Amino acid sequence: MKIRPLHDRILVQRIEEEERTKGGIIIPDTAKEKPIMGKVIAVGDGRVTDSGQKIPMVVKEGDRILFGKYAGTEVKIEGEEYLIMREDDVLAIIED
Amino acid sequence: MKIRPLHDRILVQRIEEEERTKGGIIIPDTAKEKPIMGKVIAVGDGRVTDSGQKIPMVVKEGDRILFGKYAGTEVKIEGEEYLIMREDDVLAIIED
Amino acid sequence: MKIRPLHDRILVQRIEEEERTKGGIIIPDTAKEKPIMGKVIAVGDGRVTDSGQKIPMVVKEGDRILFGKYAGTEVKIEGEEYLIMREDDVLAIIED
Amino acid sequence: MKIRPLHDRILVQRIEEEERTKGGIIIPDTAKEKPIMGKVIAVGDGRVTDSGQKIPMVVKEGDRILFGKYAGTEVKIEGEEYLIMREDDVLAIIED
Amino acid sequence: MKIRPLHDRILVQRIEEEERTKGGIIIPDTAKEKPIMGKVIAVGDGRVTDSGQKIPMVVKEGDRILFGKYAGTEVKIEGEEYLIMREDDVLAIIED
Amino acid sequence: MKIRPLHDRILVQRIEEEERTKGGIIIPDTAKEKPIMGKVIAVGDGRVTDSGQKIPMVVKEGDRILFGKYAGTEVKIEGEEYLIMREDDVLAIIED
Amino acid sequence: MKIRPLHDRILVQRIEEEERTKGGIIIPDTAKEKPIMGKVIAVGDGRVTDSGQKIPMVVKEGDRILFGKYAGTEVKIEGEEYLIMREDDVLAIIED
Repeated sequence: MKIRPLHDRILVQRIEEEERTKGGIIIPDTAKEKPIMGKVIAVGDGRVTDSGQKIPMVVKEGDRILFGKYAGTEVKIEGEEYLIMREDDVLAIIED
Repeated sequence: MKIRPLHDRILVQRIEEEERTKGGIIIPDTAKEKPIMGKVIAVGDGRVTDSGQKIPMVVKEGDRILFGKYAGTEVKIEGEEYLIMREDDVLAIIED
Repeated sequence: MKIRPLHDRILVQRIEEEERTKGGIIIPDTAKEKPIMGKVIAVGDGRVTDSGQKIPMVVKEGDRILFGKYAGTEVKIEGEEYLIMREDDVLAIIED
Repeated sequence: MKIRPLHDRILVQRIEEEERTKGGIIIPDTAKEKPIMGKVIAVGDGRVTDSGQKIPMVVKEGDRILFGKYAGTEVKIEGEEYLIMREDDVLAIIED
Repeated sequence: MKIRPLHDRILVQRIEEEERTKGGIIIPDTAKEKPIMGKVIAVGDGRVTDSGQKIPMVVKEGDRILFGKYAGTEVKIEGEEYLIMREDDVLAIIED
Repeated sequence: MKIRPLHDRILVQRIEEEERTKGGIIIPDTAKEKPIMGKVIAVGDGRVTDSGQKIPMVVKEGDRILFGKYAGTEVKIEGEEYLIMREDDVLAIIED
Repeated sequence: MKIRPLHDRILVQRIEEEERTKGGIIIPDTAKEKPIMGKVIAVGDGRVTDSGQKIPMVVKEGDRILFGKYAGTEVKIEGEEYLIMREDDVLAIIED
C-alpha cells in the first residue's frame, strides 16, 4: 500500500525526541509555536496555479524537515503514525 | 440516475471502519482532525480559473482517498449515503 | 414576465420532498448541511473575470441540481417560490 | 442635478409593494434575506480591473431589478429616496 | 502649502448641511450608513496594480461627491477641516 | 549606521506638535483615527509583485508626509525615535 | 548540520540587548510591537509566485536585520536558539 499526497501535500513521519537530541536539535518547552522534526515519506505532484501551471515541489522524499507544532493532519497507516501537511507548512530542510 | 459533481467537486462513498482496518489504515481517536477514507464515485470537469482555463482533476473515478473528517456535504441517493466535496479537501490517494 | 439572473446567478425552483423520494434521493435529517434538489429555471450569462473574460455557465436551464441548504435568496414570482443562487452554490447536476 | 455613480455602482429607486404585487412579484415575510425590486436610474462606467481593463456594466438605466434587502446606501435627492449599490448586489433583471 | 494625496486617495472638504439642502440633497436621519457630500480639493496619481499599471483617477479636483459616513480620515490644515479617503469610498459624483 | 527599510517600507521621523502648528496643520482631538505628520528618512526599493515586477516608491527621502495614528512600528536608533511603516500607510505628501 | 529555510523563509539569530545598545539601537519598552535585531544565518531560495516565477530574496546571509517582536518560530539547534521567519517579517536591514 502506498499513500500519494495530493497537489502540494506531503506525507511525514515524526522523528522522536531522542533522535532529535542526538541530531542536536532541541525544541524549547517555552516556545509558543514549537517546530517539530520529521522525515518526508512521500510528496505530491505540486499545486496547480490559476494559470494552469504546476509548481514543482521543493521538498523531496527522504528529506528531514522542521515544521510547526500544529501543522498537518494525523493518520495511522499499517500501525505507523504519519502526518499529511502542505509544503508551505514546512519551515526548513535539515541537511547533514 | 447519475450524479455529476460540478466543477472541482467529487462524489465519494465512505469506506467503513472494518474495511479500513483490513486495509491497514487506522484513524487514531485522539486526532483532532481525523482523516477518513472513501471511494470516488464521480468527479467534476475541474474548476475554471479566472483566466478561463479549466484545471483537470487529479482524482479519478474509482480512486481510494483520504479526506478530513469535516470535508464535504452528505447526500443519500437511492438508499446509499455519499459525500460531495471539493478535490482540495482530498489529502491523499491510496494506491495498492 | 421573465427573470434574468445576473452574471453567474441562477433561478431555481425547489423540488418537493415527495418528488425527491420517488427519484430516489433522500436527504438525511441528521446532516448538518443538507443538500436540496431543484430545477433550474433560468441562468445568467456567466461571471466576468478580472481579465474581462466571460466564464460560460455549466448549469443549463432545465437541469436538476443539488445545492446546500442555505444557498441563495428566496423570491416569490407570480405566486411561485424560487431561489436565486450563484452557480458555485450548486453541488452537482442530476442526470437520468 | 444629476447623480453619476462611480465605477460599478448604480443609482436605484425602490418600487413600492403595491406596484410589485400588480407586477406579480411578492416577497415572502418569512425569508431571512428578502430581495427587493427597484428601477435603475443611473449606472457607473464599470469597474476597472487590476489589468487596467474596464468591465462594462450589464445593468442599464431603466432596468427593473431584484436586489438583497441590505444592499446599498440610502440617499435622498430633491425629496426622492434612492439607493446606491454595486452591480454585484443585483440578483436579477426583470424582463416583461 | 499643498497636500498631495498618495496613490488612489483624495482630499475632500465636507459641504455643510445648509448648502446641501439648497442643492436638493437631504440625508435621511434613519439611514444606517449615511452618505455625505463633499468637494474634492486634491487627488492622487492613481493606484498602481500588481502588473505595475497605474489606474487613472475618475474623480477630479473640484468634483462634488457623495461618500459613506465613515469614509476617510479627518485632518485639519491651516484651520480648515478635510477628509482623506480612497476613491473607492466615493459613491457618486454630483453633476449640475 | 544606516537603516535600509525592506521592500515598500519607509523609515519616518515624527514631526512634533509645535512644528506642525507652525506649519498650519492641526490634528483634531476628536478624530477617531488621527493622521500624524513625519519626515521620511529612508525608503525601501519597492515591493515586488507576483509577476516579479518591482513597483517603484512614490514617497522619497526628505518628503513630509501625513499618516494614520497607528501606522508602523516604533524603533529607537542612536537615541532618536523613528517609525517603520509601509508606503500604503502614507495618506498624503505635504508640499510647500 | 545545516538548516535550509524553505521558500521565502530565513534563519535568524537574535542579537542580545547589550550588543544592540553598543550598536546604538534601543527598543523602547513602551512600544506595543517592539522590533528586534538579529543576524541572518541562512536564507531560502525565494517564494514561487502563481505564475511560477521565483522571487529572489533581498535579505542575504550575514545581514543584520530589524523584525517585529512576534515574528517567526523559535528553534534550538545544537544548543543555540534561532528564529525561522518569512522575509516579509523583516522591517529593515542595518548597514554600517
